[in-house]
Amino acid sequence: MANDAVNLLAAPTDTSISDLLARELCQVEQRFAIELESGLECVNTLVAHIERYRGKMLRPTLVLTTGMACAPTPLQLTDDHCVVATVTEMVHMATLVHDDVLDEATVRRGGATLNHLRGNESAVMLGDYLISHAYHLCSSLDTTLASRTIADATNTVCSGELLQLHHRDNWELDEATYFEIVRRKTASLCGTCCQLGAMLHDVPDHVAQGLYDYGEKLGIAFQIVDDLLDLTGMEQTVGKTLGLDLKNGKVTLPVIRCLRDCDEHERHLLIEQCHGTSRETAMRADTDRIRRLLEDRGCVRYAVDHAAAFVADAKSAIDALPDSPAKDHLFDMADAVLTRTY
Amino acid sequence: MANDAVNLLAAPTDTSISDLLARELCQVEQRFAIELESGLECVNTLVAHIERYRGKMLRPTLVLTTGMACAPTPLQLTDDHCVVATVTEMVHMATLVHDDVLDEATVRRGGATLNHLRGNESAVMLGDYLISHAYHLCSSLDTTLASRTIADATNTVCSGELLQLHHRDNWELDEATYFEIVRRKTASLCGTCCQLGAMLHDVPDHVAQGLYDYGEKLGIAFQIVDDLLDLTGMEQTVGKTLGLDLKNGKVTLPVIRCLRDCDEHERHLLIEQCHGTSRETAMRADTDRIRRLLEDRGCVRYAVDHAAAFVADAKSAIDALPDSPAKDHLFDMADAVLTRTY
Repeated sequence: MANDAVNLLAAPTDTSISDLLARELCQVEQRFAIELESGLECVNTLVAHIERYRGKMLRPTLVLTTGMACAPTPLQLTDDHCVVATVTEMVHMATLVHDDVLDEATVRRGGATLNHLRGNESAVMLGDYLISHAYHLCSSLDTTLASRTIADATNTVCSGELLQLHHRDNWELDEATYFEIVRRKTASLCGTCCQLGAMLHDVPDHVAQGLYDYGEKLGIAFQIVDDLLDLTGMEQTVGKTLGLDLKNGKVTLPVIRCLRDCDEHERHLLIEQCHGTSRETAMRADTDRIRRLLEDRGCVRYAVDHAAAFVADAKSAIDALPDSPAKDHLFDMADAVLTRTY
Repeated sequence: MANDAVNLLAAPTDTSISDLLARELCQVEQRFAIELESGLECVNTLVAHIERYRGKMLRPTLVLTTGMACAPTPLQLTDDHCVVATVTEMVHMATLVHDDVLDEATVRRGGATLNHLRGNESAVMLGDYLISHAYHLCSSLDTTLASRTIADATNTVCSGELLQLHHRDNWELDEATYFEIVRRKTASLCGTCCQLGAMLHDVPDHVAQGLYDYGEKLGIAFQIVDDLLDLTGMEQTVGKTLGLDLKNGKVTLPVIRCLRDCDEHERHLLIEQCHGTSRETAMRADTDRIRRLLEDRGCVRYAVDHAAAFVADAKSAIDALPDSPAKDHLFDMADAVLTRTY
């Protein structure tokens, strides 16, 4: 399972990194389960459900790989790296659970979402349970460094989500605001994962900042691709409800580009989709037409090019790091963001 | 405003405490506003709305008063007391915002709830924004003591909410489970407020434990009365949507007692209420009948007696504290739980 998780992003070419990452991610999974275990059976049932949400484990992988890349002794990690990696996965899982409530999603990682299965109430509370346990675990460390840094990131994540809600159904959304939303809601936590992976080794500030930048740019690229997959992916491959962004009035990069150039009829097609009044079969036909429209107008290419530019920026940000297999893996992870299909 | 807030619970008879509490609560309010301020206007609008939720400020008052009662120099508080008091108010406010989503409440503190006004999505996210800022503020302290203790309490609060959801529509709910829910979802945070108020003065463990017990018992009494007010209070006085517990399938102490003794017809009346199928006027008539039923059967008295017993336990738990005006005020606060009408 942990090994699969690594491979989803980028298979490390160096076997020692591959083995170490797989082992560490296994420990993250174990720690995750131990921390969330409750004396209440009804709570354990809910937790078991969301453990199936686990996907790419991008955030813990970032903590661990940046930790390896900044280690004074090659590949060496501290115990705190595993703790922080687990915390970031909990925080991320909490945002997924609450996002599904916001999006009224019914499928996640190929299974029914918690809100669909158990109602919004349980999903809201289980998200809170995850966040609370994340902070609890984080405050078990000796210093407040990780708690402060992660809480700072979650402040930003929440403000990004609120900004996105504020711009729901805003068909005039500009690119700058789109990138501001993405930077806050997704990229800030990725940046923090990388920064902490480095800081737990007491690196100089400029090194930690370089790694933050790497994570932030990678996170922006990741979200651009995520938004693209929502419009153009196959539900069976991606494993979650697709087409929700338009349905929920979320305007993403290819759509912003398309709305700029398209005619009245096409604009109508895009905006209609969000009201979800058409029957399911009609909806599916519309989804196909929208996909073709975005491709024909070069809007998919436009978004992919943006993602590629952020990946290049991410790699530049860690150029000064001494060469190592861990650094190579960070490069590979950045590249893998562009080729993922789920 | 802060002065009002103090008086809601119990007007301190000692003017020096009264003044100091009012001053400190003012600082808590200021800190609260400063911490939540965002560079995003849309976030500030939402935060301004929930600041109107502010009510009794029970939790910060507990932190501050226990701090005064345990001070090495009479009434002296540390800077950390204000920080922790603000954190507990943020955590509590977050639970209110998420509770309103869970309960589909439309009125809180005499105004429209956020979920009613801005949709569940904003309410979920604003709750997360509050929790995140609470932890961020808490991790600004020098040690992880407060973060760890508060996160431990919020773990328990969330598990209590999940336990309550699990028992929704369980008309066979027993008293032991009701008290377990109340202990977790309400009393644990009150206990933690008192424990931290003491611990920030480096008191011995048994003293901190005594204060935890005081807060926990007071919290249980507070929740019993809160549940009673939902059934028997006047909406205009209480300032929030009432009758929601039955409507949402939440079985509370007087109802548990009543269901034990009532006949089939009365049982039907109680359970019907939760389905909310009757028209609004019929619902109001039913509410009046339920209120009379609970009073006639002595179930209101039964719940009040329980609350009174917990208040007595709360006071016993701090018996060993040296006499002081602050200790007197803790006694008064416990008594005031029984006489509040909102």
